Amino acid sequence: MNKVQLPFGMQDYLPEECYNKNLSERRMADVFSSYGYKKVSMPALEYCDLFTADGAMPENKLFKLTDTDGNLLALRADATIQVCRMYVTSMSGVQRMYYCLDSFEYLSDANSARDREFAQMGVELLGNSDLDGEAELLAMAVDALNAAGLKNFTIELGHVGYFEGLAEEFGISAENISKLKNLINKKDMLGVELLFNDLGISEENKDSILSLPLLFGEPSVLDKAKALCHNEKSLNAVDRLKMLTNKLEKMGIGNYFSIDLGIVSSNNYYTGVVFKGICEGVGASILDGGRYDGLCNRIGKSTEAVGFAIGIKRLLTALKQNGVWKNAPNADIAFAVIDCDESLVRTTLTKLRKKNRVVQVFGDENDLIEYCKEKKVSRAILFDGDAVELTLSSGGKS
Amino acid sequence: MNKVQLPFGMQDYLPEECYNKNLSERRMADVFSSYGYKKVSMPALEYCDLFTADGAMPENKLFKLTDTDGNLLALRADATIQVCRMYVTSMSGVQRMYYCLDSFEYLSDANSARDREFAQMGVELLGNSDLDGEAELLAMAVDALNAAGLKNFTIELGHVGYFEGLAEEFGISAENISKLKNLINKKDMLGVELLFNDLGISEENKDSILSLPLLFGEPSVLDKAKALCHNEKSLNAVDRLKMLTNKLEKMGIGNYFSIDLGIVSSNNYYTGVVFKGICEGVGASILDGGRYDGLCNRIGKSTEAVGFAIGIKRLLTALKQNGVWKNAPNADIAFAVIDCDESLVRTTLTKLRKKNRVVQVFGDENDLIEYCKEKKVSRAILFDGDAVELTLSSGGKS
Repeated sequence: MNKVQLPFGMQDYLPEECYNKNLSERRMADVFSSYGYKKVSMPALEYCDLFTADGAMPENKLFKLTDTDGNLLALRADATIQVCRMYVTSMSGVQRMYYCLDSFEYLSDANSARDREFAQMGVELLGNSDLDGEAELLAMAVDALNAAGLKNFTIELGHVGYFEGLAEEFGISAENISKLKNLINKKDMLGVELLFNDLGISEENKDSILSLPLLFGEPSVLDKAKALCHNEKSLNAVDRLKMLTNKLEKMGIGNYFSIDLGIVSSNNYYTGVVFKGICEGVGASILDGGRYDGLCNRIGKSTEAVGFAIGIKRLLTALKQNGVWKNAPNADIAFAVIDCDESLVRTTLTKLRKKNRVVQVFGDENDLIEYCKEKKVSRAILFDGDAVELTLSSGGKS
Repeated sequence: MNKVQLPFGMQDYLPEECYNKNLSERRMADVFSSYGYKKVSMPALEYCDLFTADGAMPENKLFKLTDTDGNLLALRADATIQVCRMYVTSMSGVQRMYYCLDSFEYLSDANSARDREFAQMGVELLGNSDLDGEAELLAMAVDALNAAGLKNFTIELGHVGYFEGLAEEFGISAENISKLKNLINKKDMLGVELLFNDLGISEENKDSILSLPLLFGEPSVLDKAKALCHNEKSLNAVDRLKMLTNKLEKMGIGNYFSIDLGIVSSNNYYTGVVFKGICEGVGASILDGGRYDGLCNRIGKSTEAVGFAIGIKRLLTALKQNGVWKNAPNADIAFAVIDCDESLVRTTLTKLRKKNRVVQVFGDENDLIEYCKEKKVSRAILFDGDAVELTLSSGGKS
């Protein structure tokens, strides 16, 4: 029977997992808020056009449905595009925003390990902010992941301009650049080689592009990258990454960052620096972001912009793997009511609930004691005439 | 151009509204947590069957879409049904849960004032809890709305058994009972009268049903209600409401409640006591709930259950109308960096951000002062060689 099963790629968050989700989200929200970012929320359904505008997202990755008036709707596929819509229609100047929302990806492979609904906590800095904005975001990413309890993560920095400059220098068309990006993102070097043979790219140029996924590690790799290119766009990209890593180094958080020029772009709307947070034991990035100066313009108003999103489920996997996982707390106090003035019960409970989780056991004294033993609750109150605190012999918090 | 508009019945929460939404949600979550309720979350997409199982919800109110494998999916139409699915598949005994999720209603009227996506914060108490469970939920509803800042609300109590008993007594078919429920819920007494003429109901019986929407007010109205019926089901319903209102009275929260036997059921899965929170100035209920003992059974396992959901947007409207509305806080401290050791900047900011919202102004001293004036920020720090606290002549918090 279908009805008790979940469609593939969808999941419940049971109390234990939801407790950790909620805790991480609250702690990261507090960090974003301390940087002056304000929470916003956008609807789950938009006109399909918003996401596909000027090729921002591929239409076949959207959950689509037809509205009563015949318009094509899509489930939220990317919250960043929604924030841009909001900025274009009702904001100006520098704006700092964060959101905590689920996005959807229409996958057709029921055996894929990917989720089709995924919770994300994201931040967007719109308006002119330049290098300082990028550094602000990256420092905030470090602080947020730390606040969530994660320590052993690395944020890899790349720049889409480096690859684009090289490809343009070699005379590759926009369409093929897009194909190449996908292959390089997947680190599919065989695919890249085959495409190059088709395009008749020279051996030397082939080598430059093929070495892209190998250009990762310490910032010193940027010197190697510089030697491989002879065009302004790529050189500018390298310079920008140098300035940024220098700044992060001086800020004292350089240890969290490394270079990966193989990240050419996880979304096709990025225009500059791109970043990707990774953590041992998690097969996919826990954080993705970058500069997307052109995106608002596609919707109607030109502005600089930079942002990132943290994948909550991947973060939770990382926290679990690293032993930073809390047990959802049980009750601090349990009680049962035998026969007692209702007003005394209410007054007592209201006072206790100011600082405690207080749970009623629907039963008698034995049920109450049984419950406290089973759930390791350390205090039990029996309302029988008066409020009587029971002595729990083998209860108590473990 | 479609792409920057929102589909009808959908909305953004801009920073101001989102701040109040978030604040209310956090405060109510803390209340639910103090009663031992644990947060859970369910996916936005389910198999359509789940919501329509045994007529739990009408199919034409669902946003439906076909999955890649041909199965029919629906957007979350009711989180309570999802909690039941979760309980049936992975829980037992008494379970207390809360959620904070958006639900969707497929409306065809673009001019309707109703939202098609609506945020709800809901609680569910599954497992045997009887009258104590109902009282626990209702006290928690009072505490949660108070915590959100709402004072002048009333929770109306009804019981679906009262109406059902009467209708069965008069020999009305199940199908027509369902039609009648809808009419009575809308307080469409003319519609009720027309249906009765069709059914050939006697004048006396007609009067009993027609007086239902008039049976509201102080608990004393229950005596009037008792005199109108001669069947066990209705009499039991009246007795149950008497016991419940007595208990709430003794608990010292009787002033928040009144009787309305005209609430026959806002959802057709309710089986006992139903409740509806109303507040002056808001045209629709801000809270809806009741006992739904049969719902889990429709999905596969029998259990008692009672719960309610608070409509967040309606709650926000009520808070606004009642002057309980906060301004989203601006920065506590703003700063600009002219030329300074990055490590000093980072250390200073990290310390300040422990207790403050600290925002960078991308500009020079004049931009910083201008920003503080405009946003009424009371402290400004200029990083120029050293960290210099500026004296703001006309700034300061208003």
